[in-house]
Amino acid sequence: MNYSEVLKNARENLNGSCKVCAVCNGKACAGQVPGMGGKGTGEAFTVNVEALAKRKINMRVIHNASNPDTTIELFGKKMELPVFAAPVSGTTLNMGGKYTEEEYISWVIGGCLDGGIYPMVGDTAVDSFLITNLEQVKKFDGEGVAIIKPWENNNVIKKIKLAEEAGVFAVGMDIDGAGLITLALHGKPVEPKTVEQIKEIVESTKLPFILKGIMTVDEALLAVEAGVDAIVVSNHGGRVLDQTPGVAEVLPAIAEAVKGKVTILADGGVRNGVDVLKMIALGADAVLIGRPFVTASFGGQREGVKTYIDNIKGELKSAMVLTGCKSIKDIDSRVLF
Amino acid sequence: MNYSEVLKNARENLNGSCKVCAVCNGKACAGQVPGMGGKGTGEAFTVNVEALAKRKINMRVIHNASNPDTTIELFGKKMELPVFAAPVSGTTLNMGGKYTEEEYISWVIGGCLDGGIYPMVGDTAVDSFLITNLEQVKKFDGEGVAIIKPWENNNVIKKIKLAEEAGVFAVGMDIDGAGLITLALHGKPVEPKTVEQIKEIVESTKLPFILKGIMTVDEALLAVEAGVDAIVVSNHGGRVLDQTPGVAEVLPAIAEAVKGKVTILADGGVRNGVDVLKMIALGADAVLIGRPFVTASFGGQREGVKTYIDNIKGELKSAMVLTGCKSIKDIDSRVLF
Amino acid sequence: MNYSEVLKNARENLNGSCKVCAVCNGKACAGQVPGMGGKGTGEAFTVNVEALAKRKINMRVIHNASNPDTTIELFGKKMELPVFAAPVSGTTLNMGGKYTEEEYISWVIGGCLDGGIYPMVGDTAVDSFLITNLEQVKKFDGEGVAIIKPWENNNVIKKIKLAEEAGVFAVGMDIDGAGLITLALHGKPVEPKTVEQIKEIVESTKLPFILKGIMTVDEALLAVEAGVDAIVVSNHGGRVLDQTPGVAEVLPAIAEAVKGKVTILADGGVRNGVDVLKMIALGADAVLIGRPFVTASFGGQREGVKTYIDNIKGELKSAMVLTGCKSIKDIDSRVLF
Amino acid sequence: MNYSEVLKNARENLNGSCKVCAVCNGKACAGQVPGMGGKGTGEAFTVNVEALAKRKINMRVIHNASNPDTTIELFGKKMELPVFAAPVSGTTLNMGGKYTEEEYISWVIGGCLDGGIYPMVGDTAVDSFLITNLEQVKKFDGEGVAIIKPWENNNVIKKIKLAEEAGVFAVGMDIDGAGLITLALHGKPVEPKTVEQIKEIVESTKLPFILKGIMTVDEALLAVEAGVDAIVVSNHGGRVLDQTPGVAEVLPAIAEAVKGKVTILADGGVRNGVDVLKMIALGADAVLIGRPFVTASFGGQREGVKTYIDNIKGELKSAMVLTGCKSIKDIDSRVLF
Repeated sequence: MNYSEVLKNARENLNGSCKVCAVCNGKACAGQVPGMGGKGTGEAFTVNVEALAKRKINMRVIHNASNPDTTIELFGKKMELPVFAAPVSGTTLNMGGKYTEEEYISWVIGGCLDGGIYPMVGDTAVDSFLITNLEQVKKFDGEGVAIIKPWENNNVIKKIKLAEEAGVFAVGMDIDGAGLITLALHGKPVEPKTVEQIKEIVESTKLPFILKGIMTVDEALLAVEAGVDAIVVSNHGGRVLDQTPGVAEVLPAIAEAVKGKVTILADGGVRNGVDVLKMIALGADAVLIGRPFVTASFGGQREGVKTYIDNIKGELKSAMVLTGCKSIKDIDSRVLF
Repeated sequence: MNYSEVLKNARENLNGSCKVCAVCNGKACAGQVPGMGGKGTGEAFTVNVEALAKRKINMRVIHNASNPDTTIELFGKKMELPVFAAPVSGTTLNMGGKYTEEEYISWVIGGCLDGGIYPMVGDTAVDSFLITNLEQVKKFDGEGVAIIKPWENNNVIKKIKLAEEAGVFAVGMDIDGAGLITLALHGKPVEPKTVEQIKEIVESTKLPFILKGIMTVDEALLAVEAGVDAIVVSNHGGRVLDQTPGVAEVLPAIAEAVKGKVTILADGGVRNGVDVLKMIALGADAVLIGRPFVTASFGGQREGVKTYIDNIKGELKSAMVLTGCKSIKDIDSRVLF
Repeated sequence: MNYSEVLKNARENLNGSCKVCAVCNGKACAGQVPGMGGKGTGEAFTVNVEALAKRKINMRVIHNASNPDTTIELFGKKMELPVFAAPVSGTTLNMGGKYTEEEYISWVIGGCLDGGIYPMVGDTAVDSFLITNLEQVKKFDGEGVAIIKPWENNNVIKKIKLAEEAGVFAVGMDIDGAGLITLALHGKPVEPKTVEQIKEIVESTKLPFILKGIMTVDEALLAVEAGVDAIVVSNHGGRVLDQTPGVAEVLPAIAEAVKGKVTILADGGVRNGVDVLKMIALGADAVLIGRPFVTASFGGQREGVKTYIDNIKGELKSAMVLTGCKSIKDIDSRVLF
Repeated sequence: MNYSEVLKNARENLNGSCKVCAVCNGKACAGQVPGMGGKGTGEAFTVNVEALAKRKINMRVIHNASNPDTTIELFGKKMELPVFAAPVSGTTLNMGGKYTEEEYISWVIGGCLDGGIYPMVGDTAVDSFLITNLEQVKKFDGEGVAIIKPWENNNVIKKIKLAEEAGVFAVGMDIDGAGLITLALHGKPVEPKTVEQIKEIVESTKLPFILKGIMTVDEALLAVEAGVDAIVVSNHGGRVLDQTPGVAEVLPAIAEAVKGKVTILADGGVRNGVDVLKMIALGADAVLIGRPFVTASFGGQREGVKTYIDNIKGELKSAMVLTGCKSIKDIDSRVLF
C-alpha cells in the first residue's frame, strides 16, 4: 500500500467530512467544527500551516552526515522519530461516521507502534470516547499517552486514574479545551486552571505530565512553575479559539524561555518530514501531528498509519542529510534561513 | 432557528443584493454602491476585514477567568455585550427591496433589545427613511440611537429634534457622509464641518452626541475639542471614500490619543465575537456591526437578529476565557500577539 | 450614456484585444504585446496598479473644504483636473482593428477637450500613425501634446517640426521606447540619449518639452540638467521593460529630488479620481492616464471619453472633500496614511 | 518557427508530464517527482520564481548604451550570452516518454551550439542515461559540460573519466543529489562530501570543476577551500529538498563572500532575458536554465532550442539598453531597485 492509495481511500471513507486536499491547510474545511476544520474563520488552523511554510531551510551538502539518526528518547521511551500522533477523537461527530471510534483509534495505535512512535489518545464531551480510547491503549500494553480535558480538578484526577489503569506511560491535559463554555450548561464544566490547580493535578500522578495548549512565553513559565514535565505548544489545531498566531510563530520565544527546563512538544500544521525538521530547529524536542493520522487511519487502517510514518521518517532523514544534521539534537537554528 | 438557517434564508431574501458569502469581506460586492458593497474598487471595505484578520491574539489558559462578564454600561445604558447595530438604511436601494424599511428596521431594533444591546438607526438622501426609522424606535420606547447625515447645521439640528421626540437616548452624525457631493445638486447639500459647527450641533441637544467617521488622530483630538461624547472610528464601511486604511489599523493610535477623554466606538469589519475582542484590545470601548445585521434581519427577522447577537456573545465569552479576561475592561493590548 | 454602458460597448468593440476587466490591472492581458498587455510576464503593468493600491489615504471630515477646486494650470493651459490622456496609438495592432486610428484618436481628443483636459498623441514604428494623430490634433486647433519616439536626433527634430506645424502646445519624447531593438533592423533605430542629445532636442523647439520615461532619481536630475520642462515618471505601462517597480513606488523619491525644478507628471496605473489624488499626494503635478481612454473611446466615442473624465473629476472632488483639500496644491503627503 | 508554436507543440509532446504553463512557476506540477515538479509541497521550485519576481529593476534611458554586448568568456569558451542549459535528464521518467533521451539531448546540445551557448548534461540513478548523454556530447565535438551525481568518490572519478573521454570542456558534480537516500538501498549510495572528498575529485581531473548545489555562504567558502573552479548556486530546481529559500534570495550574500575567487553560476527560476539580467545583477557570472530547455526541445527540437536562446538574447539585450549596461560586466547592483 502506498501513500497515494491511502489518500485516495481516505477521500472516500471520510464521507466528505474531510476533502483530503493536496495540502492539508484548513481552507476547504474552514469553520467546520464539528468536522475537521478550524473554528470560526478557520484561520487559526490555516495560520499553523502558513507559519511553518514561511520558514525556509538552509540546504547544506559539504559535510559527512550521510546516514543521520532520527531517533530520540522521551518519557523513558525510544522513538524512531520525534513524532507523536496527536490526540484526536470523535469519529461520529467529526469524521463522517464510517468507522467506529474503536476501529479508528486501534489503527492509529497499532500503526504508530509498528512505525516506532507512540500515540496520544483524547477525551471529549462524551465520556465513552475516553473509555474506548483507553481500552484500546490497554490492548496495546499501554503503549500510549492519554490527554484529558480540563474538567473540574477532581474529575481530571479521576480520569487520570483511569488512564493509569490502562497502563499509559504519560498523561496530560489539553487545557485549551477550557473555551468550551457550553459544556457547563450540560453539567460538565471545563475551566482554565491556576498554577495551584495544575500543581494538584501534576501531584496526583507519578506519570510524566504533559500540559497541552501553551501559546505564550508567560504561560510556558507558569507551566514550569506548576511542575509539568512537558508542554505542548498548540492552539488545538485552531479548533478552540479563532485568530491565534501559528505555533511556528510563537515557538522560538517559548523555547528560548523554557528549553531544558521542560520538554517542549510542538503541535500545529506539521505534515511531513521537513516540517518536523523545522519545528525541531525552531526549538521543539518533538512534534505532534493530528489530522494526517485521521487520513492515514481512515484511508489505510493500521498499515496506512505505518506507511505515513515511514514516509515522514524518510523525508526527515533525507532532510537531515541535506542540512548536515547527524542526529535530532544537531537540528538547531543554523538549519533555518 | 439557528444561524445557518438565518444565512440560508438571507441569501434568498436579499435578492442578489448581497451574496451572504462565507466570510463577509467585500470582495463579491466590490463597487456595488448602491448595493451592499464598498465604493470604487471596494478596497476600503475589504481592508477593514483584512486589517482585523492581520491582528492575532494570545491564547492564555493558566488563570481563573472561567466565567467572564461581557456586559458594559454606556450612555447610561447597561448592555449585554459591547456591541451596537450600526446605522444602515435604504432597503429599497441597497437590499433588494423584498422587505420594507419598516419591517427591516423593526426586526433589527426588536432583535437588539431581545439580545440585550441597542440599535443605531440612520438617515439618507430620502427624508422619509429617517422618519420611518424614528417611528420604529419610538415604538420600542426610544431604546435606540439616531445618526444624522451632515446636512447644513440648521437641518442637522432639526433632525436631532425629531430624534429627541422619538425618545432616543443618544444622537450622532455620520460626518463622513460629506463626500456625497451630488446631493448638493438636489438642493440638499452635505458638508464637512468645522469644530465650531460641530460645537453648535453638540450644544443643540442634551443627549449624548456621537461623531461617526473619524479615521485620524488629529481629527479625534478635534472631536474632543468640539465636545462630543463619543467618536466612531469608521470609514463608513468603505462606502464613502475608496482606499482608506482599515479601522483596525488606525484605531490604536487614536485610542492612545483620546482614550478616556471620549468614548471610542470602532466600526469596520467586525463579524464575530473574536473581532469584538480584538477591537476592544486595540482601544475601543465598544463596537458597531453593520452588514451582518442586515443579513440577520433579512434572514431571520427579529429572531434572526437575536440569534446573531447570542452567537457573538458566546464567541466573545469563550474568547475571554481563552485570553484570561474576566471583564471587558480587562481586555487590553496584552491580548494581542 | 453612463460609464457602465461605455464599458459594455468597449468589451464588444475591442474584439478581445482587451477584456475590459472590472479592475484594469494587467492580469488578463499579461504578455500581450502587441495587444493591450504588459511585456513578458506583464508584471511591470500589474505593479503599477498594485503600487498605487498599497498606498492608503487619510479620510478627514473636520474642516471647511466643502467645495474643492480641481483645476490646475500647466504649460500655459487651464485644465479642469490634473489629468492628461496618455499617448497611446496603434489601433490596428493593439486594439482589435474595429475602429481606425483616425476615429479612435479624434474621439479621444474631442472628448478630452469637452471634459476640460488635454490629450497627448503618440508615435510608433509605422510613420503614418503620427501623421494621422497630428492631423487630428490640428483639426482641434492644436489643443494637444505630441510625444515622439527616441529616433536618431535628426529624425526626432523633424517630427517635432511636424508637431509644431500641427499647432501642439507642447512636445515630448517617450525615451523609454529605446528598448525596441528590432527597429534598428528595419533601418529606423531608436536609442537611449545622452544629456547632450536631449539638450539638442530641447533647444530645437520653443515649445515646452516633456521627457517621458523617467524611473530613477539620478535620471530625473539628468533630465533637469538637460533642460526639459517636464518629466513623466513612467514605465510605459509596462510595455518596454518587464520587472520594473511601480510608478507610485519611485515617484516620492523623484519628487523629493526635483519638485519645483521641473514639472512632474506621473503615468502608471491611474484609473480613477482617488488614484489621481494619490499620485498628486506622492509628488506629481498632474497625471497621465492611458488604457482607460482606449476603453472610453472604443466604448463610447467622444461622449464616452467625456463621461470617463467627468467621472474622474467627480471622484477627485469627492475625495478632496473627504481629505480636506481645497485645491490641487493642498494635496500633499498629509493625505497619505 | 516562433516560440508560441514551440510552446504549443511542447504542450502536446510532453504528454501531460508538463503543462507548459503561461509562467513556468512550479504550481501546476507541485510535488510531481518523478515528473517536472518540485518535491513535496513544490515550494522550493515556486520560491525560485517568486524570489526572482520580487526583485525589480531600475529602468534607465539617459546614457549611450545603445548597442550592448551580451557575450562572455567562461571556461575558455566564448558565449553569445551568459547562459548554460542546465543538466536535465530522464525523459522516460520525467518527460512523458514521447522522445528518447538521445533525441531530446541531441536537440538541446545542437540548439545550444546553434545559439552560441553551451549545454550541461546530467547523470541519474540509471547509468545508461549518462552514457547516452556523453555519446551525444561527443558527436558535437565535446562542446558541453558533464555534471555527475555524488556517488562514492571512486565512482564519481570513474564517471569523470568517461566525460573526459567524450571530450567535455568542464565537469562538475550536483552534490545536492546526496539527499536521494533510497539509492543506497539499490547498492548505489550517494552522499554529501567533505572538503577532503571534494578535493580528491577536483584533483582527479585537469578540466575545470563545477560544484553544483551551494545555497549558503559557509558552503561557498568551503567550495573555494576545496579548490573548485565554479559553484552553481542551486537548489536543484526544488527537486531534492522541500522548503529551501529561492536562489535569488541567497545569491547576493554568497556573491559578496566569494565573487572573484570562484566563478558563480546561478540556477533557479530563470525564464527570460530579464531574469538573466537580474541574476547577474545579484552577483552571478552566468546562469543555468533548466525546464524551459525541456519545453524548447520537446516543442521544437534543435530549432526550438535555438529559438528560445535567441529570444532570451533579444530580451537581455533590450533590457541592457533600458538599464544602461554596455556589457555583461556592467550589470551590477545599480540595476536593482
